[in-house]
Amino acid sequence: MREEELSYFKGRRTVRSYEDRDVSKEMVEEMLAAAMQAPTTGNMQLYSVVETRDAGRRVELAKCHFNQPAATGAPVLLTFCADFNRFEKWCRLRGAEPGFENFQSFVAAMLDATILAQQFNTIAEMRGLGCCYLGTTTYMADRIAEVLELPDRVVPIVTLSVGWPAGDSVVSDRIPVKGILHSERYGDYSDDEISALYCEKEAREDSKRFVEENGKCSLAQVFTDVRYPRGTNEAFSKVFLDFIKSRSFLN
Amino acid sequence: MREEELSYFKGRRTVRSYEDRDVSKEMVEEMLAAAMQAPTTGNMQLYSVVETRDAGRRVELAKCHFNQPAATGAPVLLTFCADFNRFEKWCRLRGAEPGFENFQSFVAAMLDATILAQQFNTIAEMRGLGCCYLGTTTYMADRIAEVLELPDRVVPIVTLSVGWPAGDSVVSDRIPVKGILHSERYGDYSDDEISALYCEKEAREDSKRFVEENGKCSLAQVFTDVRYPRGTNEAFSKVFLDFIKSRSFLN
Repeated sequence: MREEELSYFKGRRTVRSYEDRDVSKEMVEEMLAAAMQAPTTGNMQLYSVVETRDAGRRVELAKCHFNQPAATGAPVLLTFCADFNRFEKWCRLRGAEPGFENFQSFVAAMLDATILAQQFNTIAEMRGLGCCYLGTTTYMADRIAEVLELPDRVVPIVTLSVGWPAGDSVVSDRIPVKGILHSERYGDYSDDEISALYCEKEAREDSKRFVEENGKCSLAQVFTDVRYPRGTNEAFSKVFLDFIKSRSFLN
Repeated sequence: MREEELSYFKGRRTVRSYEDRDVSKEMVEEMLAAAMQAPTTGNMQLYSVVETRDAGRRVELAKCHFNQPAATGAPVLLTFCADFNRFEKWCRLRGAEPGFENFQSFVAAMLDATILAQQFNTIAEMRGLGCCYLGTTTYMADRIAEVLELPDRVVPIVTLSVGWPAGDSVVSDRIPVKGILHSERYGDYSDDEISALYCEKEAREDSKRFVEENGKCSLAQVFTDVRYPRGTNEAFSKVFLDFIKSRSFLN
């Protein structure tokens, strides 16, 4: 690997704002075909991707993502779905009785869809495009399924907005690698170790601004009280569990 | 992007057999640090990685992966875990009350761990290493948690075996991109379309050999009856659902 390649990975950034410029269908297809060589469970390719370009459909889909700017402003939205519909159709057509109505099968398809999305994300960024994961996909899976007309056995997992970068974007801060890597066994964290891991993040100007703007006492409270409050997490968990159950994946 | 970069993605291959040669700790740390710039939910980095190098521990861990050759033969096994333990410790230390004991939080952490693993996989392969996902991680999550001494709120999601490639490996076949990409809405498949998508795979020599060796009538039956039979899927689903419930993620 050339040094410049590792520096792409070290310097990559999420892009939430895009030029008013198309990303061609051919380009998406070419990148997706390359991304499809990413690993997939037993080579079953338990995924599908729905591409949203039409202005009206983009408006409908963006609503499912709470109209976040990356969703409303991108020329292309790609919804990566866990998909057993296609594979099971093939099985039945070939005299094989599928037994995938269970949670491990859902996990396998979810991994496949996520790995495909991340491989696409890397290829697109290396080609100069900007992408953003819309973390709202599993919150609104039932409504997204309606907008995209997903059949039974297909569950939306992640959505990428894709476009040509406009304006500035920054490399996100991360905790040090020693904070996530454990040698041989999981070494649990002392309070001092936790403080040391997060001190740089807490000292950032943008972190301080989040705390102040939200009237909180710590950055952690911004996460627990504002961004990911218990009530919201629980409500959307119930909706999603009901949805995957309705798709016969919660057994 | 240079043409040779896209050709890496198109030509990548899974490697299951390795040279008897170390992959240094420094190299793993450097690659992981770069991979950590991959997207993560709300920049919470809801993951941990446990590195297994010790011969005795590798034997124990490989048992959890049914002693598949990639697990027994690799110098390094990396287990990527969904981890709320660290983040919640930070929250509590900062006077914040976490509300992550639910399924959406598990999904977020699972996405984070998977995206990190895939980014690491790409970087490692670009540097000439060979990797293989051990698809058995969620089957044996409870036992893996024991071997790696994972605390509460940490769930193993995927494992990568990592080493220097030995012998030959091949580029896996895939169905055509049109088979997974839907424009604007999910266009469901007719029988003829399904047959067309899978005919090339079915016509491969290795596919025919699988069918014959297993005494089956079709490749699809190898998947449903031999590789992923209903009973196995259901049994491991129950174990994994119980496990994530015991980790307070199934609410």
